Amino acid sequence: MAQSMVNNGVNVDALLAAREALKGAPQAAKFTWRASCKWKNGTHSESKVQGFHGLGEEQKHKTEFSFEADHPEIFASEDLAPVEYVLVGLASCLTAGVAAVAQNRGIQLRSVEAKLEGSMDIQGILGIDSDVRNGYDDIKITFHIDADASRKDIEALVAQSQKRSAVYDIVANPTNVTVEVA
Amino acid sequence: MAQSMVNNGVNVDALLAAREALKGAPQAAKFTWRASCKWKNGTHSESKVQGFHGLGEEQKHKTEFSFEADHPEIFASEDLAPVEYVLVGLASCLTAGVAAVAQNRGIQLRSVEAKLEGSMDIQGILGIDSDVRNGYDDIKITFHIDADASRKDIEALVAQSQKRSAVYDIVANPTNVTVEVA
Repeated sequence: MAQSMVNNGVNVDALLAAREALKGAPQAAKFTWRASCKWKNGTHSESKVQGFHGLGEEQKHKTEFSFEADHPEIFASEDLAPVEYVLVGLASCLTAGVAAVAQNRGIQLRSVEAKLEGSMDIQGILGIDSDVRNGYDDIKITFHIDADASRKDIEALVAQSQKRSAVYDIVANPTNVTVEVA
Repeated sequence: MAQSMVNNGVNVDALLAAREALKGAPQAAKFTWRASCKWKNGTHSESKVQGFHGLGEEQKHKTEFSFEADHPEIFASEDLAPVEYVLVGLASCLTAGVAAVAQNRGIQLRSVEAKLEGSMDIQGILGIDSDVRNGYDDIKITFHIDADASRKDIEALVAQSQKRSAVYDIVANPTNVTVEVA
């Protein structure tokens, strides 16, 4: 494969160099990601993201990012913003991984689209039935990928992205969460 | 407590009526939330959210919501958008729950702020050490709440929000995720 001709916009050389550098400096691989959230009114809130910690020091995104959330009208809220943030995080993490793995494997991508569906029985969050969980009982992601590669290679690409995805792991496996009042 | 004087902007009467109605119609409680994602370039993608299924029929948010995601500059990306979507979802879900439970318990909120930190050893996603998980190894959320209530009542409020939170459950407990190529 003419790997040098492939350009998915991912700097794989820099990522491979970072991997080599961090092998000798495991403390630098310890990251802390942060967000803050302010209640606005009702179920409407605004969250902000900018600083994080990694490579042994404080880091900053180029700009501060802001995200509103709210409940839909059929939950008697104003629907000023959505609830589907976990699906967005999952979709974008797997998609970034597809691009990075494709670059590393010399596969030119033309288009990558993902459709996500998460099923949830809201008897859980409404407290109707304590045997029903609050969260998704199942999430399905379907990728449509147009690339210079066989179907088998495209499936292997998606499988490798899933294997290294932070958000897939957070959702699929239990993560310790502590909630405190200051 | 003068419950009728309390106004956190949450229509608790409508939510309690919905709970009663859904007790007799469990099929209507089955929701499907959706997102779609398009790769743009490199690790940069755009996700969209609008339609969902619930109460036995197709539903739509008032508007289509759009979210970009990207990797930070220190991962050799352009940092056009953030990666912290799971933290945003967790923060906003718990905050909406605090407002709803406070309304139901007759507690007037003045302000609710949450700070979130998620620690992640990126030796996982970089494939340096297969014993290191890809996702967060720990998430901590600290609420700062100003309300007409005792510290004990505020702690109980947060605990009840956590108990009924969809995103807390998705992150803290395993969720089945299927990833396919169309």
